[in-house]
Amino acid sequence: MGLLANGVLKADIKAAAKLMRYIEEEDTNAIDELKLLYANTGHSHVIGITGLPGSGKSTLIDVMIDYFRSSKKTVGIIAVDPSSPFTGGSFLGDRIRMQKHSFDEGVFIKSLPTKGWRGGISKVTSKMITVMDAMGKDIILVETAGVGQTEVDIKNLVHTTIVVLVGGLGDYIQIIKAGILEIADIFVINKADKNNTEDLESDLKNLFSLGTDSAKDGSENDKANAGSIKGRAGWKPSVYLTEAANNKGVDKLIEGIFAHENCLRLTGKFDGYFRSKSNSDMKEIISDYLSNLLFEKLENDSLYKKLLDDLIHNGSDPYTAAEKILSQFLNFKK
Amino acid sequence: MGLLANGVLKADIKAAAKLMRYIEEEDTNAIDELKLLYANTGHSHVIGITGLPGSGKSTLIDVMIDYFRSSKKTVGIIAVDPSSPFTGGSFLGDRIRMQKHSFDEGVFIKSLPTKGWRGGISKVTSKMITVMDAMGKDIILVETAGVGQTEVDIKNLVHTTIVVLVGGLGDYIQIIKAGILEIADIFVINKADKNNTEDLESDLKNLFSLGTDSAKDGSENDKANAGSIKGRAGWKPSVYLTEAANNKGVDKLIEGIFAHENCLRLTGKFDGYFRSKSNSDMKEIISDYLSNLLFEKLENDSLYKKLLDDLIHNGSDPYTAAEKILSQFLNFKK
Repeated sequence: MGLLANGVLKADIKAAAKLMRYIEEEDTNAIDELKLLYANTGHSHVIGITGLPGSGKSTLIDVMIDYFRSSKKTVGIIAVDPSSPFTGGSFLGDRIRMQKHSFDEGVFIKSLPTKGWRGGISKVTSKMITVMDAMGKDIILVETAGVGQTEVDIKNLVHTTIVVLVGGLGDYIQIIKAGILEIADIFVINKADKNNTEDLESDLKNLFSLGTDSAKDGSENDKANAGSIKGRAGWKPSVYLTEAANNKGVDKLIEGIFAHENCLRLTGKFDGYFRSKSNSDMKEIISDYLSNLLFEKLENDSLYKKLLDDLIHNGSDPYTAAEKILSQFLNFKK
Repeated sequence: MGLLANGVLKADIKAAAKLMRYIEEEDTNAIDELKLLYANTGHSHVIGITGLPGSGKSTLIDVMIDYFRSSKKTVGIIAVDPSSPFTGGSFLGDRIRMQKHSFDEGVFIKSLPTKGWRGGISKVTSKMITVMDAMGKDIILVETAGVGQTEVDIKNLVHTTIVVLVGGLGDYIQIIKAGILEIADIFVINKADKNNTEDLESDLKNLFSLGTDSAKDGSENDKANAGSIKGRAGWKPSVYLTEAANNKGVDKLIEGIFAHENCLRLTGKFDGYFRSKSNSDMKEIISDYLSNLLFEKLENDSLYKKLLDDLIHNGSDPYTAAEKILSQFLNFKK
């Protein structure tokens, strides 16, 4: 016990990969190792990037990694999007292009299948963040598919949420429905050369009464944001236009990300995030433990079987049945 | 209490809509009404339909509804896909086309935002199914976005899972990664006129060692499936080629759906589904109740606060903290 944790703390890639496999397989060894890592976490800047298929999100991430690396920051990527080239999805060309980063020791990529996590993707993502954080990654990028539930589930796990959109009919409605509007710190309108971006831009501005100008003029946007940071307790979502495939506008986006990080640090929210992640980790563990303990007991319990039979054959309901089970099995200390 | 439930049992649309709103808002009134509905559920054939954006899934559902209606079956639709025209997403033309069904009393459409459901989308979907089932809907279609987690979460809530794909590079990898392969009862390769379907078809066949021929020749497929139903305890996933936009192949797909329903009824699995749904409903309720009760206690608990502080400042970890909390707060009866 502790061998893997020691490796992870030295940024050893093999140890990290093995621990991540334990986590995926819900191997109990993972817990013993994770326990030893927590004291060395809370340092990474965790960034969520989300966008529907076709938004060019992966190309954008590819360019962003180049920027982070050129300023000597180490990067971890957790891809929970089945269509991402990082997870092996999407088109062959993309996958090959992404592989250039696999020769860079400063970039660690972990893809997560989106299937079958007990209790949702947020639990396993939180553990992966802990591992990459303990490895000493400066930046952790969490890529998700932009369909709503995952983004909302993991919003307490990331400092900065970036939503990538493309211009054209339908986006506006999609982002509303996906419920990712209210969790965005930064909007990117990508493929700005190929689509009409004006409608989307003005929609976003109207929604947030954004005082900032679009990132077409980066300096103004920065100024406006700097103003809004100083002037407000919170953060006013900013909008950037990019052409990731042509490496246009990404430099301004990176500046925007650091501006958001600064804002979080100035307001104490950067560390507040670690408290909130720890709190949610603790509650998840408690909740899991409780449910498992109870379900194990119910497995062979005759009352449970009788209540389930009643439900199916005698017109009972699961609420009444659950109440009976709870009063039978539990004693909470007063 | 019970007014809404009475309305729902008479298939009253206003009562159903109001109860569904209560469910969405987690209004406690919903529970009292739901309790009264359970005894009248377990009759609908619940069908999950999933597919990535661009698979033509919504057009397919549109045509399927026509078929179900022409055989006098009533239909409920629960759309949990943010890009679905049923939820207001996708392109304007689609939305307008779908509205034709809104004048049909036999079709009830409920769209669910994919955001912010405590404990995931499956819990609220299960309740919506209960309401539509109690309304007496013959068929309940649950439309999801095809990215993995939601489909796996709700697999215990549906009798028949249909995965819609289109031919072309990348699909194969996407379905593998999304983890929806193993939950599919029926595969549809849509837009068969526009894309090369052969690779995808042969991939699917190889994966399942499907003995059946593709639905290009519907009669053979039916025969083969009938054989596989009789010959096996389980079900061999079938593959159908469709051009939903031109109403081609959907008739055979509908036959395939009924064949699967028959198989489930013959093997007792149709009712087994209701037992499994009831079981999972009961466990969800028990688990929620437990967690809420405990978290309420923890809210103002000084030990919890101290442990959280230790975690953040003194290098503790959430597992050790959780263990201390559990031993402090709980007494399970032996």
